Amino acid sequence: MIQVSDVDALRRRIGEARSAGRTVALVATMGCLHAGHRSLFAVASRQSDFLVVSIFVNPLQFGPTEDFDRYPRTPEADAAICREDGVALLFTPHPRTMYAPDHSVVVEETSLSRGLCGSHRPGHFRGVTTVVTKLFNLVQPDIAVFGQKDAQQTAIIRRMVRDLNIPVRIVAAPTLREANGLAISSRNRMLDQETRRRASVIHQALRAAVDAYRQGTTNASRLCRDMVARIEAQPDFLVEYVATIDAESLEPVKNVHQNVLLAVAVRAGGVRLIDNELIL
Amino acid sequence: MIQVSDVDALRRRIGEARSAGRTVALVATMGCLHAGHRSLFAVASRQSDFLVVSIFVNPLQFGPTEDFDRYPRTPEADAAICREDGVALLFTPHPRTMYAPDHSVVVEETSLSRGLCGSHRPGHFRGVTTVVTKLFNLVQPDIAVFGQKDAQQTAIIRRMVRDLNIPVRIVAAPTLREANGLAISSRNRMLDQETRRRASVIHQALRAAVDAYRQGTTNASRLCRDMVARIEAQPDFLVEYVATIDAESLEPVKNVHQNVLLAVAVRAGGVRLIDNELIL
Repeated sequence: MIQVSDVDALRRRIGEARSAGRTVALVATMGCLHAGHRSLFAVASRQSDFLVVSIFVNPLQFGPTEDFDRYPRTPEADAAICREDGVALLFTPHPRTMYAPDHSVVVEETSLSRGLCGSHRPGHFRGVTTVVTKLFNLVQPDIAVFGQKDAQQTAIIRRMVRDLNIPVRIVAAPTLREANGLAISSRNRMLDQETRRRASVIHQALRAAVDAYRQGTTNASRLCRDMVARIEAQPDFLVEYVATIDAESLEPVKNVHQNVLLAVAVRAGGVRLIDNELIL
Repeated sequence: MIQVSDVDALRRRIGEARSAGRTVALVATMGCLHAGHRSLFAVASRQSDFLVVSIFVNPLQFGPTEDFDRYPRTPEADAAICREDGVALLFTPHPRTMYAPDHSVVVEETSLSRGLCGSHRPGHFRGVTTVVTKLFNLVQPDIAVFGQKDAQQTAIIRRMVRDLNIPVRIVAAPTLREANGLAISSRNRMLDQETRRRASVIHQALRAAVDAYRQGTTNASRLCRDMVARIEAQPDFLVEYVATIDAESLEPVKNVHQNVLLAVAVRAGGVRLIDNELIL
């Protein structure tokens, strides 16, 4: 595995792979790699010859009151996982490599990013679209794999690729779950054992809504009300949002149908967890 | 010459040129081609094997009160000029090819674009950076040539390329002038003959400031005051701004030195004209 931190070395190595006729995939991460990331690596590997993984805790996507400094960083363990998973190139830039002191250009999605997580994390998605544009321009991948767990992010990236004509194919990989159904996330390790066990309620609530829909309940308000009730029955669990939205436009729907996304964000003992299910 | 209007054909034709080992240059225009554009084509041709010219009157860079509908369009004459100048590929997309009805992603420069033309044309540079990003992603040129006449625009594009890591080299081509010194621009044809003759005062004022600097006057306020007085001595000429700014950061300077740009915008009989000189 090649590991580089500077831009010239990155471009040179990728140029070599391209010259050798390899197709390039990118998985962009903030490190602290877990089974969820590894499932993205597996999807990317199956569809390309040269897997590039970036690890960059992107300051631009954290709000002033958010946990940028406290965000977990495990560089040695991450490199070992990448090596084990057959990653061809690991890109670990320093923040000053990515952002000049007088950095002044942003990429902004102005519609899909307004609601849901966007309304609770102002500026977050602008940070995401800006850094992902930079990574796309640096790596110029044929495909890029994102997790369906971050459904709003993936929809925004797809929109960005369409609207800016970025020559990359976006692949959404299914959400990986712990044995109890909890969606795998870096933030899960911030949960105490007891809360982590009880956090299974989030996926249970989503599954119950899907079941209710299959049994004929299409009324969005009712499905949402039931999800909130089920999740908030757990002590110290607070729903930030529950939404029934079109999977592409992210517009709220009143009646659930195919291609509607059920999406939730919950503060579980102070830790922010998100999850979703797509109506097929 | 190949002429295409759709994105798939564009990508295919450029792919063929690349496969044949050609280096690609882009000159992005709004059409109504004149000697100024042709001087950009000449610079681009000298530095590449396959010259792509885009003609697209970009609605996103016109303000609601500006002249998008009245902007001159001369498609046949433009194609003839491109053919004559050895353009390899002319890209003439329709607005709906460039912008989906639910288009929602913009590229925005937030520092250099604030002053000068930016403060008089809100949203203008956001329209420019967005469309140029799209064209860069569609054409993926090795080099792109912009006119030094639009000094602020060229500085913003350079900043965008740096901050978003766009793999293209930006070349600034010198300003072409009419016999009387007036910078060549599509808007010149909106001037009546008399005003067009008198508009030579703009470049005369800039040259007088450069001469004064060479003779020891470095005080920016004084140089600016003299430029305004000289230009506004012409009936119906109104200075929108005169600025002495760092050529890269576009920050105002109090004392003129090397790499300072003298930039002016003037309303001459209602037509907006810009020009600049760089202190060498």
